[in-house]
Amino acid sequence: MQLISSHTLSQIASYLQADFEGDPGFLISGINEIHVVEPGDLTFVDHPKYYQKALRSKATTILINKKVLRPEGKALIFSDDPFRDFVALIKRFRPFEPATGMISETAIIGKNTTIQPGVFIGNHVVIGDHCLIHPNVTIYDHCTIGDHVVIHSGTVIGSDALYYKRRPESYDKLVSGGKVIIEDHVELGSCCTIDRGVTSNTTIGSGSKLDNQIHIGHDTVIGKNCLFAAQVGIAGCVTIEDNVIIWGQVGVQKDLTIGKGAIVLGQSGVTKSIAGGKTYWGLPAKPARETLNEMAFIKKLPELFRK
Amino acid sequence: MQLISSHTLSQIASYLQADFEGDPGFLISGINEIHVVEPGDLTFVDHPKYYQKALRSKATTILINKKVLRPEGKALIFSDDPFRDFVALIKRFRPFEPATGMISETAIIGKNTTIQPGVFIGNHVVIGDHCLIHPNVTIYDHCTIGDHVVIHSGTVIGSDALYYKRRPESYDKLVSGGKVIIEDHVELGSCCTIDRGVTSNTTIGSGSKLDNQIHIGHDTVIGKNCLFAAQVGIAGCVTIEDNVIIWGQVGVQKDLTIGKGAIVLGQSGVTKSIAGGKTYWGLPAKPARETLNEMAFIKKLPELFRK
Amino acid sequence: MQLISSHTLSQIASYLQADFEGDPGFLISGINEIHVVEPGDLTFVDHPKYYQKALRSKATTILINKKVLRPEGKALIFSDDPFRDFVALIKRFRPFEPATGMISETAIIGKNTTIQPGVFIGNHVVIGDHCLIHPNVTIYDHCTIGDHVVIHSGTVIGSDALYYKRRPESYDKLVSGGKVIIEDHVELGSCCTIDRGVTSNTTIGSGSKLDNQIHIGHDTVIGKNCLFAAQVGIAGCVTIEDNVIIWGQVGVQKDLTIGKGAIVLGQSGVTKSIAGGKTYWGLPAKPARETLNEMAFIKKLPELFRK
Repeated sequence: MQLISSHTLSQIASYLQADFEGDPGFLISGINEIHVVEPGDLTFVDHPKYYQKALRSKATTILINKKVLRPEGKALIFSDDPFRDFVALIKRFRPFEPATGMISETAIIGKNTTIQPGVFIGNHVVIGDHCLIHPNVTIYDHCTIGDHVVIHSGTVIGSDALYYKRRPESYDKLVSGGKVIIEDHVELGSCCTIDRGVTSNTTIGSGSKLDNQIHIGHDTVIGKNCLFAAQVGIAGCVTIEDNVIIWGQVGVQKDLTIGKGAIVLGQSGVTKSIAGGKTYWGLPAKPARETLNEMAFIKKLPELFRK
Repeated sequence: MQLISSHTLSQIASYLQADFEGDPGFLISGINEIHVVEPGDLTFVDHPKYYQKALRSKATTILINKKVLRPEGKALIFSDDPFRDFVALIKRFRPFEPATGMISETAIIGKNTTIQPGVFIGNHVVIGDHCLIHPNVTIYDHCTIGDHVVIHSGTVIGSDALYYKRRPESYDKLVSGGKVIIEDHVELGSCCTIDRGVTSNTTIGSGSKLDNQIHIGHDTVIGKNCLFAAQVGIAGCVTIEDNVIIWGQVGVQKDLTIGKGAIVLGQSGVTKSIAGGKTYWGLPAKPARETLNEMAFIKKLPELFRK
Repeated sequence: MQLISSHTLSQIASYLQADFEGDPGFLISGINEIHVVEPGDLTFVDHPKYYQKALRSKATTILINKKVLRPEGKALIFSDDPFRDFVALIKRFRPFEPATGMISETAIIGKNTTIQPGVFIGNHVVIGDHCLIHPNVTIYDHCTIGDHVVIHSGTVIGSDALYYKRRPESYDKLVSGGKVIIEDHVELGSCCTIDRGVTSNTTIGSGSKLDNQIHIGHDTVIGKNCLFAAQVGIAGCVTIEDNVIIWGQVGVQKDLTIGKGAIVLGQSGVTKSIAGGKTYWGLPAKPARETLNEMAFIKKLPELFRK
């Protein structure tokens, strides 16, 4: 999540009423989770296990709950609850803006794009040329849609990530400040849900085609020319490379990669990263031949037990 | 389903053009299915197998298709088709009221609650304070939403139960007269469907967080601070206790209980009640270690067959 | 896809700027895929493997990419890319017509039918008598709905088939020119998606009841009095005969038949045609007893390995 203009370390620390270490005029240009940080970014860390990872990351400002040694060229902001304060910053820089109508006046819609009735287009949405948005689609604030995109009815783009921190008595939400990017020539079926990134983007690569009732989690990046059948569910922070084909009702767990050109057969459960160029099946998903082989042996079990 | 004011036995029997036994002035204050009856309720029974269960239940008026002995302190209404007449009563006391606009004039909406465009709010709906209802959500008549609730786009609250009686040539619908109760601090993802109770309530307990495309069946009661990932499907009349975590694409069969703090891993199928405090996996769902163990043995089958 | 009035061979070939063989006045009355052709239809073929099938089919005009011998009584149109030209014809005769409001002026809606707010009804849609269409439903152009039909919120009827031809650099869409037919006394749950046929119809037979979040693929034909539980996914070109019951989260692959009265238990994957009158379970779906049997043997594996 890039800031529209940079803020100084002292401005941010003062907003959080927090102590800091570093040049007060040190610049902060983005607010991001650890796995997507770039120089200029502020990130947060609240568990000793991850202190070093955060301090050594590309992030240049670290919101942390311990008085650690400041790495050279970086700034620190101290907080008794970095999660709470990180959320406060997201809310500060990406505040919720209630809609004033079905199509926001701040949305930009390209040439020769047809918006059918009942479509909601949020604030600061950008839609390209030659698109067709079917009735009753919802596009949340800040999402961007390329050219020649078709979105079928009931689909929801940009709803929040399911991302909570467990507290003793409840769940605290990591407010989603990222967005969804739908590239050119994508077609989305009906009643799909594409969650926005938490601080970064969820991306559907150009030329990819998704059937109905597909769920794509936050910060997942889908490559070009992928093809997903109905009711596929993909968790957050997944990377799916180009030309991947996923058949119906497959589930994909978070934080993994599916390699280029892989094919995943129906109802599989992908539980770890899988290499490209092969066909997979089963729960957990393995090379389809292995799963078929296991099934053949299971079928022979009664005979084996008789012996 | 409580009646707004009590009716007498003779009034109800006369509406059904049915014979009855008992004090004509005996009061009926509710119409309910056998598993949720309280004193004052009318229930129905049409199969000899369940006669005694109905007659001994807390219900005080029994709609029945046999001239049985009347239990003391109770009333009987005789019908050749108790199912048909029970449905007639639900329709009589909870008639369908067509909407006159996207937001009913009989709905009550709390303070600091934001209703985004395209949201339908039915008759007699009550929504609390500090809620955020995203675009194109549908809330059917009589449902109630607590405080600090967030509902994402495309979600449908209060659609009818899939509840039919098989007749020789067709299905007869048990019209849904119950409602949905969403307690405080619940967040529902996009394109979820929460069916109303048949005569009672479907409840989502306070603090529970549901991801996208989740289906919750009629009369299911979900406890506090539960967390469900995307595409979970839970059938009707299920009890899920507090702090249960269910991962993506899990299916849960009807009429069972998941104990407090249980964790159910992705794509499992829960086919019978499971105790709290443990982690489950597989179809059917068992303790995850057992399923992992079985998978390890299946992997060794080729070797075993070689021997 | 029948044409409103027949066109001549020379008219069609001239529209495509293509050479043809046959009487210039030869009539073409429909545009259809090979598996649903009737005399009078034009169909296309672009792979030598299927030339004979197309030439011997009931279709009387064949759009083909080779100068083959013309069968007697038939016409040929030559194209370097029959797929592209077939799509061009579908677009020509079933052009997309942008909506002018939530309910098209060309839609026909029967007596005593209630259309709740937020419902989109496309051009040339026909809805029968005594229907109830709940809020935020979408019915695309040309679909037809019978009498006494109930459709719950968020459901989408008539979105496009997921039907693409792989090109070296992208996918080419076979534009859907068919429609959806919902027969009498059908009830559809919330957030279902019923795709239109590619050139023919997707049909839900009279009296069938579908729960929430069900996906039905293009050109699938569902019989009478079927009952499907939530989150079932059925691919394209499937035939489901009368009185079939399918429980939650089942997946059904394309191009197969489920026989009359079959019951498919929850989370099964139907990978080939199955006979009627039996109960099935598992992935792949087999007679439930076989799956249960296998599960029992798998449970005994640790003991077997010990021996």
